Amino acid sequence: MGNYPSKLLSNAVEQFSTLPGIGRRTALRLVLHLLKKEKEDVNLFGQSFIDLRNNITYCQSCHNISDTPTCDICSNSNRDSSIICVVEDVRDVMAIENTQLFKGKYHVLGGIISPMDGIGPNDLNIDSLIANVNKGEIKEVIMALSATMEGDTTNFYIYKKLKSFDVNLSTIARGVAIGDELEYADEITLGRSIQNRIPFEQTFSS
Amino acid sequence: MGNYPSKLLSNAVEQFSTLPGIGRRTALRLVLHLLKKEKEDVNLFGQSFIDLRNNITYCQSCHNISDTPTCDICSNSNRDSSIICVVEDVRDVMAIENTQLFKGKYHVLGGIISPMDGIGPNDLNIDSLIANVNKGEIKEVIMALSATMEGDTTNFYIYKKLKSFDVNLSTIARGVAIGDELEYADEITLGRSIQNRIPFEQTFSS
Ligand SMILES: [Zn+2]
Ligand SMILES: [Zn+2]
Repeated sequence: MGNYPSKLLSNAVEQFSTLPGIGRRTALRLVLHLLKKEKEDVNLFGQSFIDLRNNITYCQSCHNISDTPTCDICSNSNRDSSIICVVEDVRDVMAIENTQLFKGKYHVLGGIISPMDGIGPNDLNIDSLIANVNKGEIKEVIMALSATMEGDTTNFYIYKKLKSFDVNLSTIARGVAIGDELEYADEITLGRSIQNRIPFEQTFSS
Repeated sequence: MGNYPSKLLSNAVEQFSTLPGIGRRTALRLVLHLLKKEKEDVNLFGQSFIDLRNNITYCQSCHNISDTPTCDICSNSNRDSSIICVVEDVRDVMAIENTQLFKGKYHVLGGIISPMDGIGPNDLNIDSLIANVNKGEIKEVIMALSATMEGDTTNFYIYKKLKSFDVNLSTIARGVAIGDELEYADEITLGRSIQNRIPFEQTFSS
């Protein structure tokens, strides 16, 4: 496509195009859709992202996104603080909560190790996981990362950091197909893969 | 997916989901992508849509999106004001300009007649087209709408309004495959279909 007849238009298209999976054509289609909405609605639309980014807060305990300093799961005394499920981000917490089969707590890494994307261990919430385990009250750490190369790399990195502690390390059973993103697994598969979790060392021998 | 752990998060996801073709999962993925960007960048992102919607202006002559009261095309004295190409929206103007084969001017309807979407003739810039033709300086009106049922309906509605005037009515040649959106046609097909345009009446007899 050629030149946009308006700077305001090209700027909005440009901004949409920065999102993953949104090309110029799709961006223009979305922008023209916004132009047909009421001003007030578009103000709410744009402002929702600004508000989110400026005011987002994370649970100081598990690092999940949370509007309160401690999230609902961490502050729920009916949940077992001795079992920690390690996940990549909020989508995985939501997916596992949806199975209603896990009654422990979470630790949200905020990503996985991905040298291709320039994400190393220091960019993730790994130190606080080690520190929590070091306190001695955690009996089991369940690694629930995607069954991808990055997930395996992260699993192994954390395994090395935790193996000297007196804690059971497990990974969720690979009912989730190899190469699949965790968040796209159906509830039953995901629930079963948590129940059938296996000791971490076993994943190397097989 | 279950409940979002944050109102700010669910609100942003909700807003993205209002866009056509963006489901909840995609919306959440896009929102998490924004959360990894700098605050300043997300402010620019959200503000771009607000600015666009609040400050958008249209060419008073052709109704295309334009930052100036009269757009670059309408104010270009090298272009032939006696040939008007009628299109749905800015995307079609950009697509036709890209062919570099049309040297007349445009009239942007701002949509096409679509009873399914509640869009009737009065929602479109049709009256001003009739008024312009009525001035007597336009020799030819080229209908360049998508080869869809809605495009055909709009063509026919405008044909009925204009047939009593002393003006040649043509439609672009249907090199553009039936059912295809105009904006996805390649440049050569689109350019040729303008050059090979046919008198409008002929489209009924065939
Ligand atoms: Zn928490
Ligand atoms: Zn114009």
